[in-house]
Amino acid sequence: MDAQVTLTNDLQPLVAPRSVAIVGLSTKPGSAGLVVLQNLLTAGFDGDLHLVGRSGGEVEGRTVKTSVAELPEGVDLAILLLPSDVVLDTVKACVARGVRAAVCFASGFAEMGDEGRAKQQEIADTARAGGMRLLGPNTIGFFNNVDGFHVSMVKLTLPPRLRPEDGPAVAVIAQSGGIGVHVSAALQSRGVPVSYVLATGNEAQIGVAEVLRFLARDPATATAVIYAEQIRSVPEVLQALADMRAAGKRVVLLHPGRSELAQQATSSHTGALAGNHAAMRLAVERAGVLVVDSLEEAIDLGELMLRFPVPPVGGLGLITASGALCGIALDYLEPLELGMPPMSAAQAESLREHLPVYTPPRNPLDLGTLVDPRPDLIGLGVIAQQEDPAIGSLLVSLPMPSPQLAPVWLDSFLQGMKGRSKPAIFVMQNEGVPLPAAVQEMAVRSGTVLMRSPERALRALARFARHGRLQAEWQAKAAAPAAPALAGLPALPSGTLPEWQGKELLRAAGLATPAGALATTPDEAAAVAARIGYPVVLKAQAGRLAHKTEAGGVLLNIRDEAALRAGWQQLHDNIRRHDASLVLDGVLVEAMGERGVELVIGAVRDPQWGPVVMVGLGGIWVEALGDVQLVSADLPLPAIVSRLRALKGAKLLQGFRGAPAVDLQAVAQAVATVGALMVARPDITEIDINPLVAYGEGRGVLALDALVVVR
Amino acid sequence: MDAQVTLTNDLQPLVAPRSVAIVGLSTKPGSAGLVVLQNLLTAGFDGDLHLVGRSGGEVEGRTVKTSVAELPEGVDLAILLLPSDVVLDTVKACVARGVRAAVCFASGFAEMGDEGRAKQQEIADTARAGGMRLLGPNTIGFFNNVDGFHVSMVKLTLPPRLRPEDGPAVAVIAQSGGIGVHVSAALQSRGVPVSYVLATGNEAQIGVAEVLRFLARDPATATAVIYAEQIRSVPEVLQALADMRAAGKRVVLLHPGRSELAQQATSSHTGALAGNHAAMRLAVERAGVLVVDSLEEAIDLGELMLRFPVPPVGGLGLITASGALCGIALDYLEPLELGMPPMSAAQAESLREHLPVYTPPRNPLDLGTLVDPRPDLIGLGVIAQQEDPAIGSLLVSLPMPSPQLAPVWLDSFLQGMKGRSKPAIFVMQNEGVPLPAAVQEMAVRSGTVLMRSPERALRALARFARHGRLQAEWQAKAAAPAAPALAGLPALPSGTLPEWQGKELLRAAGLATPAGALATTPDEAAAVAARIGYPVVLKAQAGRLAHKTEAGGVLLNIRDEAALRAGWQQLHDNIRRHDASLVLDGVLVEAMGERGVELVIGAVRDPQWGPVVMVGLGGIWVEALGDVQLVSADLPLPAIVSRLRALKGAKLLQGFRGAPAVDLQAVAQAVATVGALMVARPDITEIDINPLVAYGEGRGVLALDALVVVR
Repeated sequence: MDAQVTLTNDLQPLVAPRSVAIVGLSTKPGSAGLVVLQNLLTAGFDGDLHLVGRSGGEVEGRTVKTSVAELPEGVDLAILLLPSDVVLDTVKACVARGVRAAVCFASGFAEMGDEGRAKQQEIADTARAGGMRLLGPNTIGFFNNVDGFHVSMVKLTLPPRLRPEDGPAVAVIAQSGGIGVHVSAALQSRGVPVSYVLATGNEAQIGVAEVLRFLARDPATATAVIYAEQIRSVPEVLQALADMRAAGKRVVLLHPGRSELAQQATSSHTGALAGNHAAMRLAVERAGVLVVDSLEEAIDLGELMLRFPVPPVGGLGLITASGALCGIALDYLEPLELGMPPMSAAQAESLREHLPVYTPPRNPLDLGTLVDPRPDLIGLGVIAQQEDPAIGSLLVSLPMPSPQLAPVWLDSFLQGMKGRSKPAIFVMQNEGVPLPAAVQEMAVRSGTVLMRSPERALRALARFARHGRLQAEWQAKAAAPAAPALAGLPALPSGTLPEWQGKELLRAAGLATPAGALATTPDEAAAVAARIGYPVVLKAQAGRLAHKTEAGGVLLNIRDEAALRAGWQQLHDNIRRHDASLVLDGVLVEAMGERGVELVIGAVRDPQWGPVVMVGLGGIWVEALGDVQLVSADLPLPAIVSRLRALKGAKLLQGFRGAPAVDLQAVAQAVATVGALMVARPDITEIDINPLVAYGEGRGVLALDALVVVR
Repeated sequence: MDAQVTLTNDLQPLVAPRSVAIVGLSTKPGSAGLVVLQNLLTAGFDGDLHLVGRSGGEVEGRTVKTSVAELPEGVDLAILLLPSDVVLDTVKACVARGVRAAVCFASGFAEMGDEGRAKQQEIADTARAGGMRLLGPNTIGFFNNVDGFHVSMVKLTLPPRLRPEDGPAVAVIAQSGGIGVHVSAALQSRGVPVSYVLATGNEAQIGVAEVLRFLARDPATATAVIYAEQIRSVPEVLQALADMRAAGKRVVLLHPGRSELAQQATSSHTGALAGNHAAMRLAVERAGVLVVDSLEEAIDLGELMLRFPVPPVGGLGLITASGALCGIALDYLEPLELGMPPMSAAQAESLREHLPVYTPPRNPLDLGTLVDPRPDLIGLGVIAQQEDPAIGSLLVSLPMPSPQLAPVWLDSFLQGMKGRSKPAIFVMQNEGVPLPAAVQEMAVRSGTVLMRSPERALRALARFARHGRLQAEWQAKAAAPAAPALAGLPALPSGTLPEWQGKELLRAAGLATPAGALATTPDEAAAVAARIGYPVVLKAQAGRLAHKTEAGGVLLNIRDEAALRAGWQQLHDNIRRHDASLVLDGVLVEAMGERGVELVIGAVRDPQWGPVVMVGLGGIWVEALGDVQLVSADLPLPAIVSRLRALKGAKLLQGFRGAPAVDLQAVAQAVATVGALMVARPDITEIDINPLVAYGEGRGVLALDALVVVR
């Protein structure tokens, strides 16, 4: 979808048309057209229905027209069942008849390469010029469970239609129809109402953004689950996500490509560290999206987000009947960064009177065999954990009891949940054993998130908790006074700035660099050195001089004026040998930096998703170990501090082997400053501070080297 | 279970007794004893049955005896339904009557602390002395599906009994009864035959080892799935695992505690890196066990190991109907270290004729919508991948088709699998939709591993592939000529050896150290330096001097004899200031090591599981980042090389930023040498080489410092 598309919210003629033409109908039994027709009728479509097929004839008492030209003016929806080579002409014919929307099943377009892409573009342009909305090509159609209108070449038995009592629903948007159907079927099988499944296919015109804007206004939909391999129009998707958020709706996104990121993360240039996937993730998380990494999570979080509009902030509460499961849960939670806080004193107190003396009121709460004679303890445990301020979400995981007891247990859980809103999952273990129908019905009726695998439930809650943490960070930022935008920044030339100029920019933004100045003569250099004090460093300066160390352009540890004057000569000799044509801006004379913990801060601007800031521990280790954190350019300070603590090598920052703890606030401030620079100056495409040296608490940081690239 | 237990294989009186006494029976309706009794009768027990209860009376025409003393001599099994405080006396009474085995349900023993532990020990000692086998205490009993004999306080409907046509079965051993029942129910719900579920509880006497030895001889059982929180007797478990392997049987183990390991891995002493869990894991993997990290994996791998006795060696073959799933699979496989190799040319050729021109024969094989009209392609794809030498295991993951088509698809899969044995999983997606009964029956009858979540299937196959790689490594080692044991090693004093002595040991084992020698006078030092050439290093030597650098006991970069003599004096002054009472062995005079890539090699001896060798990249980074690999002391060289390549910072070894690639063979040899030392010299408890400097290919390694601790 290109940027010129005017987004309208009107997908009504597409998803709930009053008149439909099936174009390319063959009257041969079993033909795709007949299946599509049958599906419309099965679902009870009672609007005007036109059939168009080259060979004419009659189907179920309806005459088959032989040309689109015979359609009445202004049909809402044309369903195109045509090979790719006749799609363009048919779209033209539809436009001529004022058709308002079309679905194009045919494949053989952009997915086949450049030629197909051009063909697709022409079709999209034609439709757009004619004011016709186009879904596809290369789509499997869609399912509208709100109005009971389904466009599909697969024969449908009666698909579920939403009833008012179903409450808010999940809509599924997928570039792959197969994945869309998979996610929707999984949700429905758990009793989660699904409003629409829209397979956007190649997205020649209608894409994720347009569907989201439609859903933002759709009264039936509260949560969207998106499967997208490619986001085609970033500004429109971000705008649509804002619409969803403004409407109080939630979005879950699965976007494969992590492994690509993993490759990039180990590439040898820090600029490559922030690939599209990471930039996408940061930007959409900023926009309130919960990004998942697997189909299982897409399904589970779709359900959780629908059932629990407020994401968890806090640790996990666990209620089980097996001490063993507590141990297993701990093994799971650690890598998932979800804690299991001890039960707060007040809750423990309130629970104690209900428990026998040998069952301590704590988190995890292990009811053991008590759960059999005392199912009420499930509900009491839920209340204690729901009201515990340290708890953000809750997992009750019990072995599947007898069919008689199962509804009793679920009922006790529901008693505890009544009027309480922290996200909770009820797991009946022994996943292979089918749930009693009574339990399944109770779960659906009560909107309970009922799962079978405690481990999968833990993964889902950890993912949800991460989302809650992120959203809380952004909310805290929104509530706090806005940081003043950077002002008084110097004008910058295009290209790679020499270090002195990059450092001037950093200083103007408030970041400390070593004392020093640019000198153009030995006398100037001696004056600078006398002012800042020996020992000093000499660094040759020129925008074109990318690898100054390798060129002999850096001399360390110069102890007096004689050495400085000799060094001046030597440095210029080295540079001449390296590249006789190079004219230096001068030589940067700087105080030798004290040793400290070395970090790297980088930033790149993704052309689509905007700036991403990277911070990691020292030098080549960043690249060899990929131990970096990627953050949004405007992430608030406390959140940056928590990301620094999440570095694998965070120990080095916290006072390792007797070294003093590093000035973490100053490191975070440096990260924030680099982000603020990227925000304030869209002409900056890359910043690389390598190393940033961090000193003990209260002693700040120094940017020892800086590379800035301007567009 | 302590080391004095004489293991007999005879659990027959326990699991399949001919005569049983229920001791502690209450005639009150619903009492535990009556449930146990009812369960025996429901399952068709027809041996002698004796009831003992304090109040006497009569149950279903049977007289209740009031004392164990009234039992006939030599009852096979006593089921003890007694509170913990009367267990000891009852066990004594049982022994007096020659009872051959007992199950003790009561809790309140070792799990309650030292007093309970002492009580438990007394009971175990009494039983052992009397030749009685004891299961428990704190057990939920067991299920013997082979003979249809179940001891359980939970009322059973008729549990499944193995039939000859079920074929080999899985046995479940669990210290937690709840977990045991969970795993067994999950397996049975998939149609996997389960022979026994044995809850070993506190393992006062009968533990994992004894049950394994029983299963090794049991004709019904081919695979054991173990859940153990604690391995109580390591030599016996290793012996029992050897028995299982000798009998051609497989073992899956879930042992929680990874998170503990994660904590240890970041602790500040390398000795702590190899915790019990890691040492356990290495030792049991060495013994052929597949170690899993979750309950889901325990279930899935139990089934896979039963169905596919030969683990996969090679990458994954994938057949889907969705290109999207291929992308998701790639995201999954990367962190799981399982590759998806391209289809071999011969297989691609053989498949091409069956495929339309727009469907390329490749891996992953995306059948798209073809699978509907051409279900035979599933089988053809399976054949191609089964016969592809690059493929080790196979996943066929398709959306759930119509109930009519589902058996057709499974049948096509089975046609392809016929006579082919590489592990394969068939996934019918849309997990919430119940499988058609016909498909479920076909799967059970054919022994197909049928799953619902493609992601869970990928995790299971990746775990299985890792097992296959490990087993192949050990097999290769077994097939290769054995490395000669280290000989001619020096005798060693107890305690922490001074560096010179540690290095003497390393040299004797064949590991290079810098040229040099111990000197006790300045003249000797000067003579050594003259021989090896300046610059040299001086290092103060004494076993008690743990931190010689901090004590001023190391002087680097001494350039001539004058500096050496001055340094000698300075070093001795430093040491005197540090600790006037310290008497040095002398001063180690060594050549300055050239710079290279720094590694750390360590080894510790776990008192239970034996030696573990650790290798990682340089200095404090090992500890701050935990980037280490733990290997068995006798892991063969090629396997060590592949572990080195799996280090997160492996790039540093492979020629990073223009540096030459490191002599990986020499590093691996050093790791092997440290392992060989730990094997050859059981008196060594710890070796720490920090740093080991590695040079370019063919240029070997140097151990720059060495710490050896002798018991």
